[in-house]
Amino acid sequence: MSEIEALKSEIRAFADARKWEIFHTPKNLSMAIAGEAGELVSEFQWLTAQESMKGSLSSEKLSDIEMEIADVAIYLFRLTDVLGVDLADVMRKKMVINESRF
Amino acid sequence: MSEIEALKSEIRAFADARKWEIFHTPKNLSMAIAGEAGELVSEFQWLTAQESMKGSLSSEKLSDIEMEIADVAIYLFRLTDVLGVDLADVMRKKMVINESRF
Amino acid sequence: MSEIEALKSEIRAFADARKWEIFHTPKNLSMAIAGEAGELVSEFQWLTAQESMKGSLSSEKLSDIEMEIADVAIYLFRLTDVLGVDLADVMRKKMVINESRF
Amino acid sequence: MSEIEALKSEIRAFADARKWEIFHTPKNLSMAIAGEAGELVSEFQWLTAQESMKGSLSSEKLSDIEMEIADVAIYLFRLTDVLGVDLADVMRKKMVINESRF
Repeated sequence: MSEIEALKSEIRAFADARKWEIFHTPKNLSMAIAGEAGELVSEFQWLTAQESMKGSLSSEKLSDIEMEIADVAIYLFRLTDVLGVDLADVMRKKMVINESRF
Repeated sequence: MSEIEALKSEIRAFADARKWEIFHTPKNLSMAIAGEAGELVSEFQWLTAQESMKGSLSSEKLSDIEMEIADVAIYLFRLTDVLGVDLADVMRKKMVINESRF
Repeated sequence: MSEIEALKSEIRAFADARKWEIFHTPKNLSMAIAGEAGELVSEFQWLTAQESMKGSLSSEKLSDIEMEIADVAIYLFRLTDVLGVDLADVMRKKMVINESRF
Repeated sequence: MSEIEALKSEIRAFADARKWEIFHTPKNLSMAIAGEAGELVSEFQWLTAQESMKGSLSSEKLSDIEMEIADVAIYLFRLTDVLGVDLADVMRKKMVINESRF
């Protein structure tokens, strides 16, 4: 099993154990992704570009950012699972489209 | 190389070829993630929960959603690359934290 | 009628004329706000702080930003109308809370 | 002074008293709006359409939602102030554009 599939499977087990399937509609998951992306952008909102760089972040701040990145990713992987989407495949398809654009 | 590392490397090559490193500060990438998450949530905003389900989506709509998922993922993977974050590792750390919460 | 009430009333007339009440649930409107906020942040994502200043923006770029600001505001005013919320009142309440925080 | 101008002036006084002008670039304010819009959408993410309706919300939940609406509005009004944008004017311009679209 690929790494992404393994993560999807772990997230699914977590949700199933809590009987969260009923809440995890694609619509609701898209909201959760937007909510977590909002928390991620909040981490950076008052930082200058320079202050946002890896070398400038305190380990505590980096840890907070990592947890927000994880939240976005967990809901994003969950959405791909619920919709039966192959994440690596659609990322590569989108990069091919971007190649022709830029 | 793991699947996630392979994807990060492909995204990095794409950005480097266009000399986009200067734009890809963590601050700016967090904005790009929020922007793409906004486009993803827009795809679902007027659908009912039922209409958002895999079986109810037209193939064209699903394809639009896949491209928005890909955009969020590309910028999210790019951010983890720029910050030196191990995505699978932080996702699993966050799930352990969530285990104790829920 | 106050300026905000007048705008809410105009937005309501627009929505009613198109029979959009059924779509304009608070849940859906919160998604529309997040979607439009995503478009607004996208306008700024590759600009430096300096380039984002009023004096640095081209009139075309400023016009694009104004339209995104308007979109966020239209859905936000619509949400306050649907929920029966007095916007000026809650803004002032929140500022009092913020006074004690900062 | 119009109600919107009065609110903008109160928000400006609040920011000036804390010497926040340096943080309140248009770029940073667009991030703050996206962040607060993310918190607003989070309030609704696990509710059904019906549960999100005014009549179904507890007074505590409605109060939480009001505070998130206020946060989005405060930063949105602040952005219009910093950019010298007439909010009511751009909202009406956008509604005219929307008239021709829908």
